[in-house]
Amino acid sequence: MAARERLLVIGGDAAGMSAASQARRRRGPDELEIVAVERGHHASYAACAIPYFVGGVVDDLGKLISRTPAQFRERGIDLRLRTEAVEIDADGGRVRVRDVDGGGERWEPYDDLVIATGAVPVRPPLPGTDAKGVHGVQILDDGLAILRHLEDRAPRRAVVVGGGYIGLEMAEAMVRRGLEVSLVDAADQPMRTLDPDMGAIIADAMRGLGVKLYLGEQIEGFDTSPDGYVAAVRTGQRTLPADLVILGLGVRPASGLAREAGIEVGPTGGIVTDRRMRTRSDRVWAAGDCVENRHLVSGAPVAIALGTHANKQGRVAGVNLGGGYATFPGVVGTAVSKICEWEVARTGLNEREAAAAGFATLSAVVESTTRAGYHPGATTMQTKLIAERRSGRLLGAQIVGRENAAKRIDGLAIALWNRMTVEEMTGLDLGYAPPFAPVWDPVLIAARKAAEAVEADMRSDS
Amino acid sequence: MAARERLLVIGGDAAGMSAASQARRRRGPDELEIVAVERGHHASYAACAIPYFVGGVVDDLGKLISRTPAQFRERGIDLRLRTEAVEIDADGGRVRVRDVDGGGERWEPYDDLVIATGAVPVRPPLPGTDAKGVHGVQILDDGLAILRHLEDRAPRRAVVVGGGYIGLEMAEAMVRRGLEVSLVDAADQPMRTLDPDMGAIIADAMRGLGVKLYLGEQIEGFDTSPDGYVAAVRTGQRTLPADLVILGLGVRPASGLAREAGIEVGPTGGIVTDRRMRTRSDRVWAAGDCVENRHLVSGAPVAIALGTHANKQGRVAGVNLGGGYATFPGVVGTAVSKICEWEVARTGLNEREAAAAGFATLSAVVESTTRAGYHPGATTMQTKLIAERRSGRLLGAQIVGRENAAKRIDGLAIALWNRMTVEEMTGLDLGYAPPFAPVWDPVLIAARKAAEAVEADMRSDS
Repeated sequence: MAARERLLVIGGDAAGMSAASQARRRRGPDELEIVAVERGHHASYAACAIPYFVGGVVDDLGKLISRTPAQFRERGIDLRLRTEAVEIDADGGRVRVRDVDGGGERWEPYDDLVIATGAVPVRPPLPGTDAKGVHGVQILDDGLAILRHLEDRAPRRAVVVGGGYIGLEMAEAMVRRGLEVSLVDAADQPMRTLDPDMGAIIADAMRGLGVKLYLGEQIEGFDTSPDGYVAAVRTGQRTLPADLVILGLGVRPASGLAREAGIEVGPTGGIVTDRRMRTRSDRVWAAGDCVENRHLVSGAPVAIALGTHANKQGRVAGVNLGGGYATFPGVVGTAVSKICEWEVARTGLNEREAAAAGFATLSAVVESTTRAGYHPGATTMQTKLIAERRSGRLLGAQIVGRENAAKRIDGLAIALWNRMTVEEMTGLDLGYAPPFAPVWDPVLIAARKAAEAVEADMRSDS
Repeated sequence: MAARERLLVIGGDAAGMSAASQARRRRGPDELEIVAVERGHHASYAACAIPYFVGGVVDDLGKLISRTPAQFRERGIDLRLRTEAVEIDADGGRVRVRDVDGGGERWEPYDDLVIATGAVPVRPPLPGTDAKGVHGVQILDDGLAILRHLEDRAPRRAVVVGGGYIGLEMAEAMVRRGLEVSLVDAADQPMRTLDPDMGAIIADAMRGLGVKLYLGEQIEGFDTSPDGYVAAVRTGQRTLPADLVILGLGVRPASGLAREAGIEVGPTGGIVTDRRMRTRSDRVWAAGDCVENRHLVSGAPVAIALGTHANKQGRVAGVNLGGGYATFPGVVGTAVSKICEWEVARTGLNEREAAAAGFATLSAVVESTTRAGYHPGATTMQTKLIAERRSGRLLGAQIVGRENAAKRIDGLAIALWNRMTVEEMTGLDLGYAPPFAPVWDPVLIAARKAAEAVEADMRSDS
């Protein structure tokens, strides 16, 4: 019988614990020892739920934790919380870990290593950025810190810095908590993952919720009170009083440990892996927000922090570690979000991204309804498709609407995953009944309009 | 200048009027005269809305009519209601039409003809089938007749014959109107387009609504009162008192006129066309419920009466008649339906259909939630995938759930349209956020389970 091997996992959230669980499913404790270290207080939680938890939509913290350390131990996975990996010795096959609370350090050996260190919120290197009350939103402890802040100090004015998904979701959470909310973004629109025309709809929606938008304004620093708490946010144009600040400037892969160990990190800052989630270093795997993915439309490397990718990549790593075969082929940039009654979705490339990838594009935007117009509950939605000139290949799609709008992005994501043209898409056999769609689904109307644009462009150019 | 041509359209609903409108968009009145004849009182209406209209969910008949005859005339389309085509003379390029109310007849010449005669409800050739109060559900006049029946005679007990989409939707409509409802079906399950395991969930849901189900019972006839109205429905097992009967036995293509004129009709009873919606007869086109389609998974001809196909086919015929190029490639059997709070969807082939087409299959059924389990409003849904053995190609999918479940069928329809395997599908980049999906969308969980079944089958067989 072969000697028992040891799998070490750095990071106890989605990617790391999926890898551990899959490996365990395929290889029993006699064959494989599994140790996972996590520096926070929680493992295996739903990080994407933080805005809903902070906003009071989800009220029970326990519901966010899919498995406790005890449950992992029962399954033969030795999960150690408050244990931080501080150095990887890839040649020696060992990781130096530190007891966060006690401070002691030791080396943990491994036969296989999974790096699942996640991402860290971008913190601008500005005066006051480390003031108390300036919150990033990445791990569950961040959400708990915001809740504590709300309870202990009853802040009145929140400033959200950054208008991406997290920024907008947190702005809604603060509105729900009764705060006056301002949102500052250096760009001219919130939600830069959408084109400006679609982003403008979101801007109007946010204003409708009572959020004050300061767009095109660069943050220059944070004023601090004598007690060390943030007091205001300074932009190039104004000073916004603030009792609480939320940073929604995005996240970057937490790949420092890997980089220092000589494990290859790509241009996005994410760890480079192959399709099986193996890094370029022997017996070192990586999964989740810390890795770089291939964008299947642009072909470029991208770092997209999203729980669904983290879970898939963790599973793929775990299947392969367990002796199976699985691959993560890449992403197409699908994302959905809900901000109060507004639903937002996108997939593929937006116009700016498509241009950067060298595509010449044509776009079509249609306004339609989510159900048959005569059916109760029908609401309007905007659907935008971006197609390549000449070929008509679908490159991207964006949706802004209300109830039952956003998940239509799935069909569009699958269409561009399969390199369909907008002309081909006009024939698609989509579900139709009055409570679900007009007789021409918004996706089909948009495909028709985009196909007409491609055809007209060819005629005008010939 | 070329002589003005004449386009004659038989049938004033979705397919016919889409063809007329598209042809008109591309060829002006100086070039093309367009005449459309419709034997009913209404044109261009939403036939799929009849159950919702009868059930009182949609209360304004006017909302169902997308364009009035006057609006068509303004656009240069001479739409004549209560005018029935009774004979096609394909060699002579003319159609004999009858004034339904006045009785007069005349020949209408054409250069191009579009046959869009729709479908007719299947009426079993049984005693009493033509009694008053036995209603088919196909055209708007049928819905109005049911409403009149409800108002004039205040029926107490409704019997619905046939448990397909229309039967179930009409059963709900009768429940909404306060009637005691029984449903009889010769099959052992309602919704035979689903597999028995999924159909059983629907059966339970219908019983939960208070509908009495009599499954596996063949209809033998209808008892009639002295006043000519239906009094009971007789099955092989029992006599069900009935004040009102609704036939939901499906429809068949109304292809009699075409057949009599020597225009080719296929094995399904539908008119045979090519991809551009041309029949085998010169200058004769056909579109909508009266035609036969190619099923893109089985390869077999099918006749599926559905407004979304009718609209697409009409548009395709009209684009081609207008000098453009468009095709209708076929269908994959997608259908969705809502019965009270229950949503039902299917696409591709079910197990029975797949076996009939010669496929060996493996299935996976998963129960999951529509949103993240901790998010308010999350409900359970069942997703079933049917994959080909060995290749793992997705052949069909079925969904039964509540809010936000059914439209996930679109992504599955697009996946099988593109001949994806369930293994490939496990990598799909679908929209994830807690209000919209668990971190593993039900579609992905089902794909994983199906892929595991395909893999296990190969191993066990090697």
